[in-house]
Amino acid sequence: MHKVLEQIKNGLIVSCQALDGEPLHSSFIMGRMALAAREGGAVGIRANSVSDIVEIKKQVNLPVIGIIKQVYRNHPVFITPTMKEIDALAETGAEIIATDATNRLRPDGSDLESFYQEVRTKYPHILMMADVSSVEEAIFADKLGFDIVAPTLYGYTEETDGLKIDDHDYAVIKQIVKEVKNAKVIAEGNVSTPEIARFVLDINVHSVVVGGAITRPQFITQRFVDAMQK
Amino acid sequence: MHKVLEQIKNGLIVSCQALDGEPLHSSFIMGRMALAAREGGAVGIRANSVSDIVEIKKQVNLPVIGIIKQVYRNHPVFITPTMKEIDALAETGAEIIATDATNRLRPDGSDLESFYQEVRTKYPHILMMADVSSVEEAIFADKLGFDIVAPTLYGYTEETDGLKIDDHDYAVIKQIVKEVKNAKVIAEGNVSTPEIARFVLDINVHSVVVGGAITRPQFITQRFVDAMQK
Repeated sequence: MHKVLEQIKNGLIVSCQALDGEPLHSSFIMGRMALAAREGGAVGIRANSVSDIVEIKKQVNLPVIGIIKQVYRNHPVFITPTMKEIDALAETGAEIIATDATNRLRPDGSDLESFYQEVRTKYPHILMMADVSSVEEAIFADKLGFDIVAPTLYGYTEETDGLKIDDHDYAVIKQIVKEVKNAKVIAEGNVSTPEIARFVLDINVHSVVVGGAITRPQFITQRFVDAMQK
Repeated sequence: MHKVLEQIKNGLIVSCQALDGEPLHSSFIMGRMALAAREGGAVGIRANSVSDIVEIKKQVNLPVIGIIKQVYRNHPVFITPTMKEIDALAETGAEIIATDATNRLRPDGSDLESFYQEVRTKYPHILMMADVSSVEEAIFADKLGFDIVAPTLYGYTEETDGLKIDDHDYAVIKQIVKEVKNAKVIAEGNVSTPEIARFVLDINVHSVVVGGAITRPQFITQRFVDAMQK
């Protein structure tokens, strides 16, 4: 197994993101968030944008899953959508690059298969993570050769809008673990409680990514306020 | 009822603190945390140190409970222990000042009663919050005239070390709510989940303070990691 995949096995990866317009939007703050995550026992960090990744890599010596969220003309594929974002991420030294791996065409009109081949040829040694929204997309990404597959976009596409990882007794992530042959499956997307993290680990995912439940205080505050107003 | 007490009634107060040595230690970050708390629906902020409070007051227009954690010669009373810290907090414009209101002597040798009278004489218009560790201390602080009483130190004194607000079916906070006549009772200390916040509101506390469960990502990360390693 690749050394980085060994490092993150059975561990928690903390997604440290605050987009433009969020209260914690700041590479300085995301670097400190990564420090906090490491202090709490995280084995990896997922982060968005070159400046955040560069700052995080200064603060912690943990593997980073890099993404660039870039919207092109309201196109729905926005997680590392084109080679431009791949090139920028490769330069940061992020050990893993994640990209939208749904069956939707990309902003430049290419499909996932041709995009993947192009990336793989240019960067044969970078670990590639497929952010998918369904079991079928997970199987396809695995066949293409992605190193990691995660249902990051389950709940975040037109077809899956509002669905959660624990819906239907965790059916989607269970099925992905069962069907994916070579790639490592990481649980990502709506892992909002320690209990969910524990559950998905028990169905044999390789690692678990948690984001907002740790690093978006506005979202955590809202959960307390909602409970108090019920 | 005092306008500020009206403002925080039935609401969530978020404690935004990162002490020296913590990953988020930075007044800039605490200001952004306060913004996030407001965005999530908080009605007040609790904060430590003049520089944090000044920055938070620049960022959000919410009532602030100010404290200064200052240890004198390893003395166990460290939450706003002397008049020096009261004076500094009064200057920040914090609407409420919280202080240790346990039955322990203070670093200068004075007891709570004489300290309280001295503060009240000097600052008749500031709301005073008593951080106590027991029902008896809550009753005494109420009799002295504190505006707010909270079991902030329950679990954090030699006698109560490790106890939690929800121990024994919430006995301590229930008893405080029952026995305190004039002061408002705020639930603070180990309110670690939305369920606990909901529960204490149902036993008629005036407001709820949540800290680490929202603003200490290292602590939240640890809870996920603990669940995954169980």
